[in-house]
Amino acid sequence: MTGNTFGKLFSLTTFGESHGPAIGGMIDGCLAGVTIDFEAIQYELDRRRPGQSELTTSRQESDQVEFLSGIFEGKTTGTPIGFIIRNKDHKSQDYEHLKNTFRPSHADLTYQKKYGIRDHRGGGRSSARETACRVVAGAIARQMMPNEIKVWAYVSSVGEVKLDKSYKDMDPLAVDYSSVRCPDADRAIDMIGLIEKVRSEGDSVGGVITCVVQGLPAGLGEPVFDKIHADLAKAMLSINAVKGFEIGSGFAASSMRGSEHNDAFNQDLSTKTNNSGGVQGGITNGEDIYFRVAFKPVATIMKDQTSYDLQGAEKQLEGKGRHDPCVVPRAVPIVEAMTLLVVADHFLRQRVQTSL
Amino acid sequence: MTGNTFGKLFSLTTFGESHGPAIGGMIDGCLAGVTIDFEAIQYELDRRRPGQSELTTSRQESDQVEFLSGIFEGKTTGTPIGFIIRNKDHKSQDYEHLKNTFRPSHADLTYQKKYGIRDHRGGGRSSARETACRVVAGAIARQMMPNEIKVWAYVSSVGEVKLDKSYKDMDPLAVDYSSVRCPDADRAIDMIGLIEKVRSEGDSVGGVITCVVQGLPAGLGEPVFDKIHADLAKAMLSINAVKGFEIGSGFAASSMRGSEHNDAFNQDLSTKTNNSGGVQGGITNGEDIYFRVAFKPVATIMKDQTSYDLQGAEKQLEGKGRHDPCVVPRAVPIVEAMTLLVVADHFLRQRVQTSL
Amino acid sequence: MTGNTFGKLFSLTTFGESHGPAIGGMIDGCLAGVTIDFEAIQYELDRRRPGQSELTTSRQESDQVEFLSGIFEGKTTGTPIGFIIRNKDHKSQDYEHLKNTFRPSHADLTYQKKYGIRDHRGGGRSSARETACRVVAGAIARQMMPNEIKVWAYVSSVGEVKLDKSYKDMDPLAVDYSSVRCPDADRAIDMIGLIEKVRSEGDSVGGVITCVVQGLPAGLGEPVFDKIHADLAKAMLSINAVKGFEIGSGFAASSMRGSEHNDAFNQDLSTKTNNSGGVQGGITNGEDIYFRVAFKPVATIMKDQTSYDLQGAEKQLEGKGRHDPCVVPRAVPIVEAMTLLVVADHFLRQRVQTSL
Amino acid sequence: MTGNTFGKLFSLTTFGESHGPAIGGMIDGCLAGVTIDFEAIQYELDRRRPGQSELTTSRQESDQVEFLSGIFEGKTTGTPIGFIIRNKDHKSQDYEHLKNTFRPSHADLTYQKKYGIRDHRGGGRSSARETACRVVAGAIARQMMPNEIKVWAYVSSVGEVKLDKSYKDMDPLAVDYSSVRCPDADRAIDMIGLIEKVRSEGDSVGGVITCVVQGLPAGLGEPVFDKIHADLAKAMLSINAVKGFEIGSGFAASSMRGSEHNDAFNQDLSTKTNNSGGVQGGITNGEDIYFRVAFKPVATIMKDQTSYDLQGAEKQLEGKGRHDPCVVPRAVPIVEAMTLLVVADHFLRQRVQTSL
Repeated sequence: MTGNTFGKLFSLTTFGESHGPAIGGMIDGCLAGVTIDFEAIQYELDRRRPGQSELTTSRQESDQVEFLSGIFEGKTTGTPIGFIIRNKDHKSQDYEHLKNTFRPSHADLTYQKKYGIRDHRGGGRSSARETACRVVAGAIARQMMPNEIKVWAYVSSVGEVKLDKSYKDMDPLAVDYSSVRCPDADRAIDMIGLIEKVRSEGDSVGGVITCVVQGLPAGLGEPVFDKIHADLAKAMLSINAVKGFEIGSGFAASSMRGSEHNDAFNQDLSTKTNNSGGVQGGITNGEDIYFRVAFKPVATIMKDQTSYDLQGAEKQLEGKGRHDPCVVPRAVPIVEAMTLLVVADHFLRQRVQTSL
Repeated sequence: MTGNTFGKLFSLTTFGESHGPAIGGMIDGCLAGVTIDFEAIQYELDRRRPGQSELTTSRQESDQVEFLSGIFEGKTTGTPIGFIIRNKDHKSQDYEHLKNTFRPSHADLTYQKKYGIRDHRGGGRSSARETACRVVAGAIARQMMPNEIKVWAYVSSVGEVKLDKSYKDMDPLAVDYSSVRCPDADRAIDMIGLIEKVRSEGDSVGGVITCVVQGLPAGLGEPVFDKIHADLAKAMLSINAVKGFEIGSGFAASSMRGSEHNDAFNQDLSTKTNNSGGVQGGITNGEDIYFRVAFKPVATIMKDQTSYDLQGAEKQLEGKGRHDPCVVPRAVPIVEAMTLLVVADHFLRQRVQTSL
Repeated sequence: MTGNTFGKLFSLTTFGESHGPAIGGMIDGCLAGVTIDFEAIQYELDRRRPGQSELTTSRQESDQVEFLSGIFEGKTTGTPIGFIIRNKDHKSQDYEHLKNTFRPSHADLTYQKKYGIRDHRGGGRSSARETACRVVAGAIARQMMPNEIKVWAYVSSVGEVKLDKSYKDMDPLAVDYSSVRCPDADRAIDMIGLIEKVRSEGDSVGGVITCVVQGLPAGLGEPVFDKIHADLAKAMLSINAVKGFEIGSGFAASSMRGSEHNDAFNQDLSTKTNNSGGVQGGITNGEDIYFRVAFKPVATIMKDQTSYDLQGAEKQLEGKGRHDPCVVPRAVPIVEAMTLLVVADHFLRQRVQTSL
Repeated sequence: MTGNTFGKLFSLTTFGESHGPAIGGMIDGCLAGVTIDFEAIQYELDRRRPGQSELTTSRQESDQVEFLSGIFEGKTTGTPIGFIIRNKDHKSQDYEHLKNTFRPSHADLTYQKKYGIRDHRGGGRSSARETACRVVAGAIARQMMPNEIKVWAYVSSVGEVKLDKSYKDMDPLAVDYSSVRCPDADRAIDMIGLIEKVRSEGDSVGGVITCVVQGLPAGLGEPVFDKIHADLAKAMLSINAVKGFEIGSGFAASSMRGSEHNDAFNQDLSTKTNNSGGVQGGITNGEDIYFRVAFKPVATIMKDQTSYDLQGAEKQLEGKGRHDPCVVPRAVPIVEAMTLLVVADHFLRQRVQTSL
């Protein structure tokens, strides 16, 4: 009820604050008998972790996941997979000044108003550190599903640097060639240049991630409220700093004519175009799903800002701490993970209908 | 599990196909003792119904709701509110040609692939007629909450005609002045002109709806997966023909700097700007929520299209039937209704935390 | 959240008060392509309805179910099955005297205290009439599952008349030979005699129903909280007037030794005895499930009783109206229906694990 | 969906096998601002742990809970409370002989049939060790609710030794005077004597626990499927080895007349008798709730038993290992914990209705 669980048949429940003893969670509903590739999980965690490249915060988080249950002799048993990731490199004193102050465009004030109490250290539960648990679960979702289902994402814009090409022109293997996770080499250089400039100014910058799902069978998704793209939208907006989502033709569709937008059929009932983004009436049609996710610039900047405490006393916030000037490179594995959670959930839900 | 229920504490469950005996649903979790204004409910249904103006389909649906339970002597009793809306004006024979054919960019084929069977008449469960139930529930949600909570929406673009003003410059009372539901008189005329042109061409056109929530207390929304704007995103994408959602600064945020995007506090902890769109970390901060919803042009057009049956035989689809050239005017009450469902749900969820 | 829905994958949601326009509900999650036998549904409703025999209330309720959705050309489509049963034979004036009075051992006072308002006519939502919806859903659950799964129940005691034989000595086809639904002819006569005596005294009497599930595959049920017998216990206690549940050896197990209670295996891993009642660790083992459900005597009696209103003023309640002296004969189809809902739900849940 | 979560507003999710690295769980929905008494939690864990007295297994489990989140500076923050209990004193080699063998009346075979794979060590997920997590959550539920709500349980029978007195004649403080947790000194001695005799015979024995809830306000529970006693029934049957549940008059009600069973009102609308056990129509009426829970004798006995593997080869099971001859003394805190979870859940659910 408090929104710490995502998914209905394949579900992830998370707990933990950034500066408590550990974050962790539980993956429920994973099929039994899946051989777990632990290195692949750690690989995804490493793609998300701070300190991985010159573009990210210098804060080092090793993000070593410890599995506590649900896996026996290397295979899932069908019982819940509990796991924790210990928090290290605590610099809680960095946050002492935030005890009675609220950072602009952070969740400090809203948590205080909601609960009347909060763990003020490093954002507590609102810290993006929570997303490490999502990456663990996404990696397991990927391993549970058939190999032909591919989920991959990449950075398609940073600030005003935009990649104006289709995902079809991108090579999924090239995403990680650059630290910015843009598979187009030219745009990647521009993006890195922009991020370094922004960092040198003590500022932050937003961006867009494009995500693609390929190899999905037709029939996934539920007709009315749990349309697969509605669940994807929720999944994406549940990621910190996300402000927008569009699938297929997206916002551009609002300017189009039906005769132009309709995806005509080929004789095998595949479609000639894919404005719908692989989903009709909330259900996959077997074409590629692709969507775009907009991220705002992170609120933590290295500039001084003015705030107030609950009594209205002015508080000066110094720009300090270790943070990313642009989160989108590190958000790529998070977008993939949340997409994998949605896909795995609907994959299991459709088993009910199609089995026997 | 099959996605026919929306909401956790205040929930709507719907059933029904467009050409069966009735559609209907059940509102669960409405507080006891709420005096129901039945005329206000019918008023919202009339805003959604086909045939209401020269802009919409000439198909007449009277959409008379019959309440079956949960209301006694004009007040809610706390028990579930069941209701049905009989389907009338059936022209099921209009759809006989669709029995073995699939319309481009409709859900015909995906339902067939999901279930192996479908009610082919008028889209069956995928028909937008289902949204009438959402409008009923939204109207009751509105009546359950304090009067100061205002939810209103309007058409902010139709095709290439765009309203480039803030919601703050709009008068909520002016929305229904024009049949296109754009509160700016000049743009409304342009939009109507465009829709009539598109209709005369046998085509359809997309658009954008802007929605605003005012008067919400701080503290609504849940921290991680059930962020209030994540639930809004899901709510919007669950509406037929929606392809995109953005809140506050939205996609534009991706081009901004943090120093520009951060919403600085006033001394009373309200904010000077509202790029965040009234939500920080998934929780309302007391500022206005505003978001934009992109609709594609409806798939039904008055032009001939080619399709195929499951055996690969070519089928020619004639452009006939009675449909809207542009759905956004009629979608305004649907967007409001889904927004009201999300807000009412989080309103009740926060009661758990704040009461006693 | 308000407990009007039962089941997770195969679910029933109900609404309606006994003296409103209709009761009804929605069955969600039924597989697509199931051919519906409408007569079989009506047959079960007739087994539950008042006025069916000399043993029950003379109140006639025809209980004609109208299906509104989810069934097309006689087959389920996978979409939700909405249905209503109109309320007839209203004698609401019979209840006018109850507006400000509370009947002993009825739910009148507790609804008033919970909601501060109630539909006082005939118990409103607490009326056993609501169970007609469960019977509809149970009948559909039965039709969805393979024929070899058999669920049947019978009256095994009425007051002090007890049937001291195993279900294995009973013939399922003989249950409906007598109006009391006891398949043992001798005990049936004794039970009928007792009920008639009790009725002549203006009193009511309790009883016990035994229920049996046969032909279930091993593997149904979930390990921890959703043990299949835990779900059965909840299902049974959710039926009006039920005060107890025991499965397999039941309360007698508390006096037994482990060496005596353990069910030794045969070579094919079936068991020699079945004290466990077909469930080990919450999961079916392929043996018969059998359990007993205790019903209290119904609270409505034809004797005068004293009560008070909220202001403490004494109110004399006359024994009048039309009610059953013993509900267990009519509760047999309700027990079967709730059992079928639990079994169908776990049947679908196990499809997720075993399919592909 | 896999039944590892209990409760809707106040919920517990658990994971873990008895011989993995740890068991653990997450308490979700606990109100913010509750001061946590960690000693009280450990006290309850110590009441459940093996090796606490001469009556229980000599297997020592220290059951030290480590809280990972949701508590800050000694108070709950409203965010999820994650916790783990490390498994120690592993003697996994004790279980090597069970890899391909199935113990009679254990869950070995049913897990194998459900999942096709299992952690065979010590029952894995089906081990009663999982209930330690429930005790943690129950202790927190107790601390969240007003002090006047009292939940206490005691052993009311062991085998043929039965305590034939009402809970009203028992002193809650006397429950722990004896290791068998029967507050009647005479019966306690008899029970201990019986358990020691059974142990000396290498056998096990069942028993009954009575549980009482006092100080509850009227209005808790939901009308139809989530009747509070239906949820209690499910909670109890979800505990290992439980075979039966009865509330108030229970099975005895089936032999009673309505005139005898009805609970007449006093002028203040309290009742003169309490056959209903504090619940009318699924909703509390403010009287005491009391119910009885039947436990079978545990399946592990110190006698040789014959079993078979999946290929039908005979396997001789030696009676060895360290187990309780009677689980009911240690099950008392588990029954209390599950009761507390149900009560806390409905306590929060009713806040939605009654607040503002």
